Amino acid sequence: MSDTGEGKRFGFEVLHKDASTGARLGLLRTPHGDIPTPVFMPVGTAGCVKAMPHEFLEQLGARIVLANTYHLYLRPGHELIGRMGGLHRFASWPRAILTDSGGYQVFSHRELRRVSEEGVHFQSHLDGSSHFLTPEKAMEVQAALGADIVMVLDECTPYPCGRPDAEASMRLSMRWARRCLDRWRELDDGARGIFGIIQGSIYPELRRQSAEELCAMGFSGLAIGGLSVGEPKEAMYETLAATAPWIPEERPRYLMGVGTPRDLVRSVALGIDMFDCVLPTRNARNGCLFTSRGRVLIKNACHAEDPGPLDPDCGCRTCRRYSRAYLRHLFMAGEHLSAVLNTVHNLTFYLDTMRKIRQAIASDSFGEWLRALEKLPE
Amino acid sequence: MSDTGEGKRFGFEVLHKDASTGARLGLLRTPHGDIPTPVFMPVGTAGCVKAMPHEFLEQLGARIVLANTYHLYLRPGHELIGRMGGLHRFASWPRAILTDSGGYQVFSHRELRRVSEEGVHFQSHLDGSSHFLTPEKAMEVQAALGADIVMVLDECTPYPCGRPDAEASMRLSMRWARRCLDRWRELDDGARGIFGIIQGSIYPELRRQSAEELCAMGFSGLAIGGLSVGEPKEAMYETLAATAPWIPEERPRYLMGVGTPRDLVRSVALGIDMFDCVLPTRNARNGCLFTSRGRVLIKNACHAEDPGPLDPDCGCRTCRRYSRAYLRHLFMAGEHLSAVLNTVHNLTFYLDTMRKIRQAIASDSFGEWLRALEKLPE
Repeated sequence: MSDTGEGKRFGFEVLHKDASTGARLGLLRTPHGDIPTPVFMPVGTAGCVKAMPHEFLEQLGARIVLANTYHLYLRPGHELIGRMGGLHRFASWPRAILTDSGGYQVFSHRELRRVSEEGVHFQSHLDGSSHFLTPEKAMEVQAALGADIVMVLDECTPYPCGRPDAEASMRLSMRWARRCLDRWRELDDGARGIFGIIQGSIYPELRRQSAEELCAMGFSGLAIGGLSVGEPKEAMYETLAATAPWIPEERPRYLMGVGTPRDLVRSVALGIDMFDCVLPTRNARNGCLFTSRGRVLIKNACHAEDPGPLDPDCGCRTCRRYSRAYLRHLFMAGEHLSAVLNTVHNLTFYLDTMRKIRQAIASDSFGEWLRALEKLPE
Repeated sequence: MSDTGEGKRFGFEVLHKDASTGARLGLLRTPHGDIPTPVFMPVGTAGCVKAMPHEFLEQLGARIVLANTYHLYLRPGHELIGRMGGLHRFASWPRAILTDSGGYQVFSHRELRRVSEEGVHFQSHLDGSSHFLTPEKAMEVQAALGADIVMVLDECTPYPCGRPDAEASMRLSMRWARRCLDRWRELDDGARGIFGIIQGSIYPELRRQSAEELCAMGFSGLAIGGLSVGEPKEAMYETLAATAPWIPEERPRYLMGVGTPRDLVRSVALGIDMFDCVLPTRNARNGCLFTSRGRVLIKNACHAEDPGPLDPDCGCRTCRRYSRAYLRHLFMAGEHLSAVLNTVHNLTFYLDTMRKIRQAIASDSFGEWLRALEKLPE
């Protein structure tokens, strides 16, 4: 594989544990730089974080982004990206990248796929073409993309799901995880991280089994999948609380696809180190903005003549320069610039929140964040 | 009027005349800064240059942008912008702005308008609402927007147009120009510039009459309108050559809505000082890019695996960082970032071209540009 950074290898270290919660401060080491945790990874679906010039992303301190294997596999194709030297070089993004397996997108197009022991047949949402994704193939595609952290192919169990189905689905994911790891070890020399994904729906016993099996296989880190897929919020937290303790302390814990600022704080308190979510970027394009005073729907008429900044406590380039009135105008006029400026702000809010969370853990004051949870956007 | 800059007043000065052509080097003074001419003004339709963060525009040296009165009048409304302190403050754009009169957009929606001596009735393309634009109203709207240079309301004569119709249309535009100027003098103390617009289709005698009448009225500058509206290229240049000499040397000459890089050079040679055109910005969004080697259609398959920059002779942030392969991918994937990066490049190409043209005039070598015209994108 090409472009493996500066010869650095994947690693993780817990630097400090919060005195009063399960929160921990850590450092992820990757071939493309070190990443303080807990970390939020902006989603860069098709090889770019939507509407964000790379410079902006760098300036606001993003050290790692997530890219979607499904989208890149279909367009422009992983082989093309591989020939171009991997995703870092293709996209001119010098910092770390995590790729998902493509499974989540395949499974979310329910009518377009068919699962077997061997893998999953699916049709492209772009042109209807047929594809067959196996655990081995998912590894080969991610190897061509050349991310710093890759994810196993799993079946994302839908919600609700009876226990027998949840168990069968989790078992399939565990067999696939094994096949992924075996294939990955042929493709990578250990420089990159590979994460297993814990499944088991909302059943604590299944989650425990899944976690233990994946840990025994020797993954570099463990992700918690199949949450935030429609279950009640409290079911998510109960499952999370019942799952996280089964992940050994020395491995990074990644909660996939979560969540709101409030979710981040609650999950950090349960020991989660890594997050990704489309919420800040997608909401930005829809005019829903996260601020220190709560959510702001920028299209609302009350902002039409507001000369003040979107968030007086924010130092991002959007809040420093533009008024709510202008941001509303750009949104109503459907200007590209609206997506750019809104995304800059929402990602700043998320990354600033994570920075403050890390500071709080370092000073053993993270418990105050939990107690002041209702001040954060939900 | 608010936000009149630092007490500076509109002015224009010719600094140097090229030895071998009609080209001239000048300086436009405005309340929001001085602008070396010949100048290309990026089009900022709705109060922003599409897909361009202001910082990017500033960094590439744009000293003045054009904003469309028609669009701002309809959304968010000139009165709102006036209450917000004018367009500079509303849009947080500290440099110069020229506003058109709104006439061009009104006349381009042919089925939605009805012209009389008094003004023009039209329907909004957004919601079908009825509006009545008079010369006086066009001035009042532009006064509320607070641009540094405003344009009279004129009838943009379509092409082709018989001489009697062209003359009647030009006469109406002259009577409207008089009314505009009278109203404007009630609204402005002379700090801002107001430009008359020469009409008369492709008839040199009508163009001469129009130019002479507007000059006699005492406008700060003269624009040439009604060109690049479908006539053959050579008809445009014949008309331009027959019109420009009737504009006194000491007034700035603005060719509206033109054109390609080649057009800019040919028109500068005929003594034009100012240009605006949607071409670089609109083409950018459509994936048509201007380079030192000619036009590049970025969607073409030949760019799919090209690791080289879009234009090896360009120093813009797009060409410095990204490959043609990545730019093609972003375009094919419909990413917002495609519009941003392409617009950065095309505007850089236009503004760099104007910078080089000014340098050539200063060193009396502009004739070489004319002789090497075919090297420029047409």
